Amino acid sequence: MNNIDFPQFFRLVAEAAREASLPHFRVDTAIENKQHGGFDPVTVADRGVETVIRALLAEHFPEDGIVGEEYGSERSGAARQWIIDPIDGTRAFISGVPVWGTLVGLTVDGDAVAGMMAQPYIGELLYGVRDQGAFFERGDVRRTLKTRMTTAIGEAIAFTTTPELYTGASAGLPAHLRRSTKLLRYGTDCYAFAMIAAGQVDLVLDPGLKPYDIVGLIPLIEAAGGVVTTWDGGSAEQGGDIVASANPALHEQALALIASSLRGA
Amino acid sequence: MNNIDFPQFFRLVAEAAREASLPHFRVDTAIENKQHGGFDPVTVADRGVETVIRALLAEHFPEDGIVGEEYGSERSGAARQWIIDPIDGTRAFISGVPVWGTLVGLTVDGDAVAGMMAQPYIGELLYGVRDQGAFFERGDVRRTLKTRMTTAIGEAIAFTTTPELYTGASAGLPAHLRRSTKLLRYGTDCYAFAMIAAGQVDLVLDPGLKPYDIVGLIPLIEAAGGVVTTWDGGSAEQGGDIVASANPALHEQALALIASSLRGA
Repeated sequence: MNNIDFPQFFRLVAEAAREASLPHFRVDTAIENKQHGGFDPVTVADRGVETVIRALLAEHFPEDGIVGEEYGSERSGAARQWIIDPIDGTRAFISGVPVWGTLVGLTVDGDAVAGMMAQPYIGELLYGVRDQGAFFERGDVRRTLKTRMTTAIGEAIAFTTTPELYTGASAGLPAHLRRSTKLLRYGTDCYAFAMIAAGQVDLVLDPGLKPYDIVGLIPLIEAAGGVVTTWDGGSAEQGGDIVASANPALHEQALALIASSLRGA
Repeated sequence: MNNIDFPQFFRLVAEAAREASLPHFRVDTAIENKQHGGFDPVTVADRGVETVIRALLAEHFPEDGIVGEEYGSERSGAARQWIIDPIDGTRAFISGVPVWGTLVGLTVDGDAVAGMMAQPYIGELLYGVRDQGAFFERGDVRRTLKTRMTTAIGEAIAFTTTPELYTGASAGLPAHLRRSTKLLRYGTDCYAFAMIAAGQVDLVLDPGLKPYDIVGLIPLIEAAGGVVTTWDGGSAEQGGDIVASANPALHEQALALIASSLRGA
């Protein structure tokens, strides 16, 4: 991966995602449905964004594998795999709220080493590369990203998409989190994970994620100083029940809280 | 109010709010606390934004009354009252998520006739004036706003800030809403209300609002075709438990659903 110019490639992806998504964001759905034969605008955007990203990958990295939410796998035996979620946060997208994002991550032998989230409407690009750092770009602004040093879980700002995703043994976890943190907010999908990298949010939990929901975000958060694992501390690259924290000390507390909540303690 | 150039004044307010808020958005809270003597960045932004809006009002409408979240009332006997929420969505603000907004509304004899929401980070201004329409501005883009024609509640996209605000007789209302609508999302505060005016969201419920949380949004939503009342169909200008809908037919269904849920039906 040392021969890849990630900033340049991620900017190309962000620009392509912008062109393919914004014409379908905040449109009149009645008109859009007529033009695209009954598809939702977000479906049109989802497929359009993945198509342009696949074209960029074919041009720049023709031997690498691709896993995309919409169009599945190519070259699944390759050591390098690019994982694409063209529109993460489709419910935010259809509601006109710009906290959805385009996620692209690169795994090498199953390990996420570089990743990005673009928010095309706001014009933001956040990306991270192992051993190179994490960065924010918007217009002429470019800065390094660093997670927060919050180590007391009682001081943490936490997010999860919705308490309704927690069922069975985890049903009590949102209430447990709410009592144990400074603030628990709902909504925002990938955007909340990106805000860990940006040093604004301390903790994000989400159950039942797919690999493409999280792989692009792992290197972004890790390169900024954070930690991303499954709820039992395992590797996050395969998705599942995921927790991301601003730093290792906080992550340890978060894993303990989750374990205790799942035991019903 | 016919002699007021609302677009021009609201642009001045949006620009002043931008200058007073953005230096404190996504900052390093440790540094900010040191500089401002232990205040949270959002408190500094809240006070700063209200101060610059009060200065604009004093310059342009010196005889009108003002009610602000941070600095209370002035000239409370005046027929025209400007109602200010300098930063609505403070929890989004401290989390780095740009769905907070600056709200300013004008009431004449208690009736909200003009109002605006600005989102300074994204650079959006949405405003509505009775009998003049509702408008969106961002950079060079300017367009008229129109709510959606969704009339079946089962097709509605609904928002509320968090289910945890629903207690007592209303405790079952979020679940009732979730079952009865196409989608119930949490988060976003004022931004969800603005998305009704923008034709993206159909229904927003929030309990326990203050007048400054809603007065700026009422004319925006109404001038775009929507309806804003209390849960029992009364005037929304005094705040309380508020429901906003994309159109009158949908509002009628929303009021019926709320009444039925509060009765425990």
